[in-house]
Amino acid sequence: MRSPVQDYLDRLVDQIRPVDEGTTYQAVPSAASMDRNLFGLALTTVEGHCYASGDAEHAFSLQSISKAFTYGMALEDLGPDKVHEKIDVEPSGDPFNEISLQAGTGRPDNPMINAGAITTTSLIKGRGGRDRIGRIVNTFSDAAGRDLKVSEPVFKAEDKTGHRNRALAWLLRSFGILESDPEPSLQDYFRQCSILVTAKDLSMMAATLANQGVNPATGERVFSPQVVRWVLSVMSTCGMYDDAGTWAIEVGLPAKSGVGGGLLVVVPGQMGVGVFSPPLDEHGMSVRGGVAIKQMATDFGLHYGDVPPLGRSTIRARYDLSEAPSSVPRSVEALQALEVHGPECRIIEIGGDIGFAEAETLARAAVGLPASVRTLVVDVRKVDDFGKAAARMLTHVVRNFLDDRRDLILVDDDTALTQSLLDYAADTEDGALPDPMPETTTWSTPAASTAGAAATAGGNAGGSAVDSFTSDAAVSDLAPADLDADGTVEAAVEPEFRLFLSRPLALEWIEQRMLARHAPDLVPTGDQEPTRSPLLEMLNEEDALTLSAFMETRNYRAGQVIRRAGQPFGGIYFITAGQVELTSQGSGGRRYRQAYLSPGMIFGEIALGQAGRQLTTVRAMGPVTTRVLTAQVISALEESDPQLAIKLWSALARDAYTSVEQMSRESGARFE
Amino acid sequence: MRSPVQDYLDRLVDQIRPVDEGTTYQAVPSAASMDRNLFGLALTTVEGHCYASGDAEHAFSLQSISKAFTYGMALEDLGPDKVHEKIDVEPSGDPFNEISLQAGTGRPDNPMINAGAITTTSLIKGRGGRDRIGRIVNTFSDAAGRDLKVSEPVFKAEDKTGHRNRALAWLLRSFGILESDPEPSLQDYFRQCSILVTAKDLSMMAATLANQGVNPATGERVFSPQVVRWVLSVMSTCGMYDDAGTWAIEVGLPAKSGVGGGLLVVVPGQMGVGVFSPPLDEHGMSVRGGVAIKQMATDFGLHYGDVPPLGRSTIRARYDLSEAPSSVPRSVEALQALEVHGPECRIIEIGGDIGFAEAETLARAAVGLPASVRTLVVDVRKVDDFGKAAARMLTHVVRNFLDDRRDLILVDDDTALTQSLLDYAADTEDGALPDPMPETTTWSTPAASTAGAAATAGGNAGGSAVDSFTSDAAVSDLAPADLDADGTVEAAVEPEFRLFLSRPLALEWIEQRMLARHAPDLVPTGDQEPTRSPLLEMLNEEDALTLSAFMETRNYRAGQVIRRAGQPFGGIYFITAGQVELTSQGSGGRRYRQAYLSPGMIFGEIALGQAGRQLTTVRAMGPVTTRVLTAQVISALEESDPQLAIKLWSALARDAYTSVEQMSRESGARFE
Repeated sequence: MRSPVQDYLDRLVDQIRPVDEGTTYQAVPSAASMDRNLFGLALTTVEGHCYASGDAEHAFSLQSISKAFTYGMALEDLGPDKVHEKIDVEPSGDPFNEISLQAGTGRPDNPMINAGAITTTSLIKGRGGRDRIGRIVNTFSDAAGRDLKVSEPVFKAEDKTGHRNRALAWLLRSFGILESDPEPSLQDYFRQCSILVTAKDLSMMAATLANQGVNPATGERVFSPQVVRWVLSVMSTCGMYDDAGTWAIEVGLPAKSGVGGGLLVVVPGQMGVGVFSPPLDEHGMSVRGGVAIKQMATDFGLHYGDVPPLGRSTIRARYDLSEAPSSVPRSVEALQALEVHGPECRIIEIGGDIGFAEAETLARAAVGLPASVRTLVVDVRKVDDFGKAAARMLTHVVRNFLDDRRDLILVDDDTALTQSLLDYAADTEDGALPDPMPETTTWSTPAASTAGAAATAGGNAGGSAVDSFTSDAAVSDLAPADLDADGTVEAAVEPEFRLFLSRPLALEWIEQRMLARHAPDLVPTGDQEPTRSPLLEMLNEEDALTLSAFMETRNYRAGQVIRRAGQPFGGIYFITAGQVELTSQGSGGRRYRQAYLSPGMIFGEIALGQAGRQLTTVRAMGPVTTRVLTAQVISALEESDPQLAIKLWSALARDAYTSVEQMSRESGARFE
Repeated sequence: MRSPVQDYLDRLVDQIRPVDEGTTYQAVPSAASMDRNLFGLALTTVEGHCYASGDAEHAFSLQSISKAFTYGMALEDLGPDKVHEKIDVEPSGDPFNEISLQAGTGRPDNPMINAGAITTTSLIKGRGGRDRIGRIVNTFSDAAGRDLKVSEPVFKAEDKTGHRNRALAWLLRSFGILESDPEPSLQDYFRQCSILVTAKDLSMMAATLANQGVNPATGERVFSPQVVRWVLSVMSTCGMYDDAGTWAIEVGLPAKSGVGGGLLVVVPGQMGVGVFSPPLDEHGMSVRGGVAIKQMATDFGLHYGDVPPLGRSTIRARYDLSEAPSSVPRSVEALQALEVHGPECRIIEIGGDIGFAEAETLARAAVGLPASVRTLVVDVRKVDDFGKAAARMLTHVVRNFLDDRRDLILVDDDTALTQSLLDYAADTEDGALPDPMPETTTWSTPAASTAGAAATAGGNAGGSAVDSFTSDAAVSDLAPADLDADGTVEAAVEPEFRLFLSRPLALEWIEQRMLARHAPDLVPTGDQEPTRSPLLEMLNEEDALTLSAFMETRNYRAGQVIRRAGQPFGGIYFITAGQVELTSQGSGGRRYRQAYLSPGMIFGEIALGQAGRQLTTVRAMGPVTTRVLTAQVISALEESDPQLAIKLWSALARDAYTSVEQMSRESGARFE
């Protein structure tokens, strides 16, 4: 299929090429003699994908566009304060080559007029074995993602005809703004202006600024985000000289033009655009370039003021535990208790780029929770970008939740967001947040705080919260909580801040805590005999024991594959100890983690479905013991004891429908 | 729980209140005598939620902040061109009260300096029974969301002491910029400056601009988006007078200060901020206001250049039909055919705000599809905002897909996005897109184009694509397609552009089309006997007929509830004709649509699961006929014919596990 972006650029080039106004730059013979019909347009996204049309690979000299990048270099080298001492940042309303320096100090108004740009270049020094112009060429090349070069003929022409700039340089020297012989700085200024680029190069250089300083194709950091912000701001207010106000209205994007015919435009967070067309308007800007950018800004709504209301898509789903319980098999009584108390735990899934508006949406949702909600799960796995505002806001949500003696649980599969939160909190005056993955087992039950140090000392001390929760020791530590007479939460239960890598593990932990709090008798403990599994609990005890007697015991070591996707139905596996992980493959060989199963749960039975074979690969996460009712035994049973077989099959059907129930309930809760 | 936003504002007010620099405005006695310690801060989100701290309800005069809003009114009244003739938009680098008009013309540099603002006011005329100042107060009140008033004492003081402004007005008159007696315009200018507001009002007025001109609390449109963009641009470049460059770097947000102590700041798409504190700096801006905004911009990363790379969260899921087939029950052969050909249909779910970067991400995904993909489903139900760039890009994706003779299917539950797409396309030079919901049934099969007019004429002509698809007539129109000898798609099949309101309906339609194309014998036709249902097809024919003989026939009329959520298991219902809809209730009484079921499918069986009762309400979407194997019959069968009961139960178990399989496959494909 043709790309709509490519189509668009091709059409734009065709549309605008006939515009034939303006005059080409005369100071440099190669520019003066350039075909005035040349017109190239390129666009590079912040993902590094480049689209180009027309004469986008035709080389021309960078000229004033260089000013933005040397300014960035000076800011990186000296820091903003030192640079600001020498060069102000105020728009002057003057043309680019105006000889206007601030009264008294001689400080140039801004780095985009020639006086400011020459001063900028003088601030950059050789370093690391490279002289000044070597460093400039090198940094520009990093931004463009290929090796750029100074054109000697262009440089010579600039040097020969640059009388006005030479006058400016000496004027700057007279005020002491240039601190030594102006000639070397001036020469390097001419050289930076003579660097040859193409529209594609410009688009990549612009995309580097749009991507907060990282070249999106090479991944190399060229400027820090702070410097990028500074440079973009100065481009916005001063980049278009005396046309800044009109540009701000019609385009509303930071841009820089050069008399070589180039125009560089940054769409922060989205893309960089480069245009090349030699004829210039009275401001020294490419005429076709200006027309093209105005058209693009209009067609695509790129103006920085054209921001739709944000924050509405932050919350991807919200539901409570009773709507989407964990898939841990439990007794009917335990399920009932969790159904009743499920609304005390609210799950909020957030996603996308979280800036201020998005973080405020989450905070408002948290604030709006009724007091009866004791646990908030924030599932952040779909978050793409997590900014400063988000770290600040979520840190406060955590603190305020804990202050209210409520639990705050994060589900974060790569822990990156949680880590940034912890880092942020540690840097603030309020101090660090509690460790969300403590190594002791005090977390495992609200009773820990009342049962006291003995339980803590006796707990296993291995691994993270996630790991320790999966161990039997942790589960067996669970003990009844002290409950108030009216069944409300006892004051002694310490609020918890927890991180889990997956939602099933988080929900399992929360359910255990909820049962320990409200129905301590129903907390499952340690190993599970198959007869205690929900499947066999549908049968009477005698039948369950009979079936159990037909089972084989099979042991597996950590990491061992128990069932592999594609195998035919081999029987029903009851986990009596340990945990297993189910994974499956999607298109392109992607591996999906489907579930974690714990003692009391079964696997292998889904191979009874349509496919007639194992869909998932089952792997032991630690030492695992199973009891297996093999396919052969089931067949034999149908002959020898049909009534028991009916009970087994109807239990299996009911068990499967229970899964269907839970899955459709969860997907209904999450996705409508 | 305390709100983190509120916490933040409270803390900021405490932190900044001790800053005690600057002098209060002296021209107005009430301002001059104001307590210099007053400090209020308010923030209103684009959802209309307001946070306030400190003296946020203390009234003060609007002063120069009024300039931005009268400028908006003039733009709405006269259009930008007429206003631009009188007032330029270029930053002057001058203080607010400078007597500087453009040489020759006397045109003020911009509407934010006093000369420009007085001119702006002169452009606004009385209308609809309201005089000029009445209209100004009314529009400002709409933006603030409450009735504002002019303070007579402030007005009188301004009028009495405004010698310099009076001089400016006469100068403007001398150049003909003011076209009549300047006094009435000047008086109304003084009056608009004397309107009393609070920091909360300012935040709502700013939020109206942040929300593209719609007051987020009242929902009233105050300015058009174009005017808002224009106003924000001029505020950005000229709103801070001679401090514009520094403000652009440190804050990077459109803002306007007033000597009454107010400061209004717009964060486009996110919020409006209002600050009030009387002491002013040398630029006439509230000192504490400036400090507060700089702190907020830094803390929350609000600078317009601080945009993280966008587009990465646009694609919420992508998978092919074989990974997430429709839940229509089919024969093993049909399922195999769909499994083989499923990769020819790719589903892409997009979500969030779709601007340029996001639309480009989608377009690139579409372009990157292999040629073997014949059908692209774009599920847009999670899209929040769909901008111009998105309409343009998606229109081209549709056109290019159809040009390639491939199908493009939209899933859009409220059709709003599709409608905006159709509207956009109709306005472009390329002309309208095909109707995605045609009323004839030619759409129903690729054979239609070869079978010719007869099939078309014979089709039912009722309703939309969605409706007609659900009718039996439409389904029975399906006929084998002409296939090339090598099984590739025949050239005669016309590519389709379709809209469906739900994914199940879209997938069902695609599967029918796929079967008609690749395996026409397997296309289901009309009514389905229970013996042909996938459940009973697991049994041999004799057993299936035996069970079928035990069933009761039950008929329902359109809209009738067949099973209600909460009822106990009543039997297994086989749909032989018509369609049913399954809905369930979530928390807060929300109703989720769970599925649509067609002939050959069963319902009622999920009541066998954990809950032991009907979880969904089943409603007939048109006339429906079912055959029911009641709970009583099943019980009786277990006694009388245990081997058949085993077969039934094992078929039920297998059927349920098939659902589990499909659901976990789909959720795996969609959500990892």
